[in-house]
Amino acid sequence: MTTVGIADTTFARADMAKHAISELKRNASVRIKRYTVPGIKDLPVACKRLIEEHSCDIVMAFGMPGADQKDKVCAHEASQGIIMAQLMTNTHVIEVFVHEDEAPSDREFAALAEARAREHALNVIKLLFKPDQLEKEAGTGQRQGYADAGPARV
Amino acid sequence: MTTVGIADTTFARADMAKHAISELKRNASVRIKRYTVPGIKDLPVACKRLIEEHSCDIVMAFGMPGADQKDKVCAHEASQGIIMAQLMTNTHVIEVFVHEDEAPSDREFAALAEARAREHALNVIKLLFKPDQLEKEAGTGQRQGYADAGPARV
Amino acid sequence: MTTVGIADTTFARADMAKHAISELKRNASVRIKRYTVPGIKDLPVACKRLIEEHSCDIVMAFGMPGADQKDKVCAHEASQGIIMAQLMTNTHVIEVFVHEDEAPSDREFAALAEARAREHALNVIKLLFKPDQLEKEAGTGQRQGYADAGPARV
Amino acid sequence: MTTVGIADTTFARADMAKHAISELKRNASVRIKRYTVPGIKDLPVACKRLIEEHSCDIVMAFGMPGADQKDKVCAHEASQGIIMAQLMTNTHVIEVFVHEDEAPSDREFAALAEARAREHALNVIKLLFKPDQLEKEAGTGQRQGYADAGPARV
Amino acid sequence: MTTVGIADTTFARADMAKHAISELKRNASVRIKRYTVPGIKDLPVACKRLIEEHSCDIVMAFGMPGADQKDKVCAHEASQGIIMAQLMTNTHVIEVFVHEDEAPSDREFAALAEARAREHALNVIKLLFKPDQLEKEAGTGQRQGYADAGPARV
Repeated sequence: MTTVGIADTTFARADMAKHAISELKRNASVRIKRYTVPGIKDLPVACKRLIEEHSCDIVMAFGMPGADQKDKVCAHEASQGIIMAQLMTNTHVIEVFVHEDEAPSDREFAALAEARAREHALNVIKLLFKPDQLEKEAGTGQRQGYADAGPARV
Repeated sequence: MTTVGIADTTFARADMAKHAISELKRNASVRIKRYTVPGIKDLPVACKRLIEEHSCDIVMAFGMPGADQKDKVCAHEASQGIIMAQLMTNTHVIEVFVHEDEAPSDREFAALAEARAREHALNVIKLLFKPDQLEKEAGTGQRQGYADAGPARV
Repeated sequence: MTTVGIADTTFARADMAKHAISELKRNASVRIKRYTVPGIKDLPVACKRLIEEHSCDIVMAFGMPGADQKDKVCAHEASQGIIMAQLMTNTHVIEVFVHEDEAPSDREFAALAEARAREHALNVIKLLFKPDQLEKEAGTGQRQGYADAGPARV
Repeated sequence: MTTVGIADTTFARADMAKHAISELKRNASVRIKRYTVPGIKDLPVACKRLIEEHSCDIVMAFGMPGADQKDKVCAHEASQGIIMAQLMTNTHVIEVFVHEDEAPSDREFAALAEARAREHALNVIKLLFKPDQLEKEAGTGQRQGYADAGPARV
Repeated sequence: MTTVGIADTTFARADMAKHAISELKRNASVRIKRYTVPGIKDLPVACKRLIEEHSCDIVMAFGMPGADQKDKVCAHEASQGIIMAQLMTNTHVIEVFVHEDEAPSDREFAALAEARAREHALNVIKLLFKPDQLEKEAGTGQRQGYADAGPARV
């Protein structure tokens, strides 16, 4: 059975993985393997281990970088590592990061986090089972957690 | 038959791949393999898989980074990953990125995107079949989507 | 017996490793292998050698970047290297950096350094022996050295 | 016979490779293999292929980054890739970049580009055939295209 | 016999390697292998070749980045490459960079360069032969070329 790896952190202030897992299970028959680490810089190796040691076919990596410049640098390092992990394994890792400064209140922040987690879970389903659906949406300005931008009006 | 990989995103607001494929087919007899992913950070591994799992001889990677600082960082990470994918495979990936802040209106943005996609498709043809043509154009200030800068006037 | 690698520097102004080792030994039966280098840019290869040449199951990397822009760049380079070391070995390296500008006085700085070292030592214990505990804390806003941020209130 | 790879771009506004090749041939008996690509981000894989597929003993990589921040980022990515290509092949790639904002007029820009290309061609000769000459010049403030800075006066 | 690689540049304005070699020879019986390159971006592959092709047990890499933003970027790229070279070889490369803007006059700059070169040579001796000495100095605020910062006073 197809296995989806879920890597997330104790640093994050919302349990995005929970929403993603719910959305994944609602849309497909997949096995879930979860791997929680302290912070986002611990995510790259967790993703690689999910792929190589836990046979995951794809991984979702959830993180919540803070608003300081220092946190932005951490997020950048984590993203570079996640891309390298993909290149070393030829396997997708869908990065689902919500930046602390993306929403003005805790409530809106949590809502954004849930929406983004769910929409990216649907992207995972498409990458695994419906690549043609993604091709149909190519260049149409899809967004995750916000309203879609839509295609450029010409 | 020579195979050209086409990696693009659902995030982009224009279907650049369509124009590139049209230009490729008009100028050469090539097979096309398309691979659409959610966002630009998913492009590096898609390019590597197109090369290693779908036997592509060259790949075009289309993306449309947003105008925010956060989006610039994503584009930078994607570009680093695309360069690494090339080094790991000894295969060219022609990056075709159009930044959201490169044009003042949707109409001009779409026109720029199409022009750049078509001109880079011609670069792909030259890399594959006419390397001597590229050598003739060396140091002549070629641009894709804008008017050529031309050589320095001395 | 499980071995925890401890990589630290002579550049740092506090012996964070001492506190981490004390915390590790108080909570688990582990062997410690320590490796001190001059500065943070020497940490990545020290971590990799601890894993590959000294059979460490996990590593903690302690560093204290200065407050200048130049020091921030060094810390960034060290972090990138530490992430790469993890990807090359499929082994966790818990980075414990305290930035010189995180505290207003030497006394507060030393207290922060000790607290962060001890809390990350507990993270190491969880990664090694209690992964379920980490999963329970997923998305709960844990911090090391500061008060926990806690989950977003919705 | 020793082979020098020459990687350059159609984006550049001056044919630096021509000057370098002339200087190389005037000073040594070497075979030249040229490889022209569209832009600087295409240089890393071109350099690696020159080394691995065309048996080059050393490579010169010519590029002309624009003056915009976006172009600076491209140059940075290209440089990182060129360094990685060297590490993957244990072979030198001498990067010869002239930034568009280094000279006030086209004429001066072209003169700078030629001077830098020729001086770096001499560096290539020294790396290949006269390493002792480089050692003699160690720490003497050599510059390529500008007047030498000279050693610090003590 | 233990071999210490010395990689340096013709770009630098002081012969730091000379001072380091003198200090190394005064403190230990080691063989020296020197490799001079044009600029700091040529250092990473020189270091890797010293290790892999000249059997060096450790390498010192000397560089003098200029004061411009462009030079800072070069130094960053060189540092990233030097860290990668270490990870690919499991061997230390002690980076000894002196930034042109670290001292107000040529005389002070040269003095700083010599002091830093000599102190890092002692670090090399410790890494090779006296790792216990480094562990004793862990967290004590050691500096190279400047007065030691010392441990935080609590």
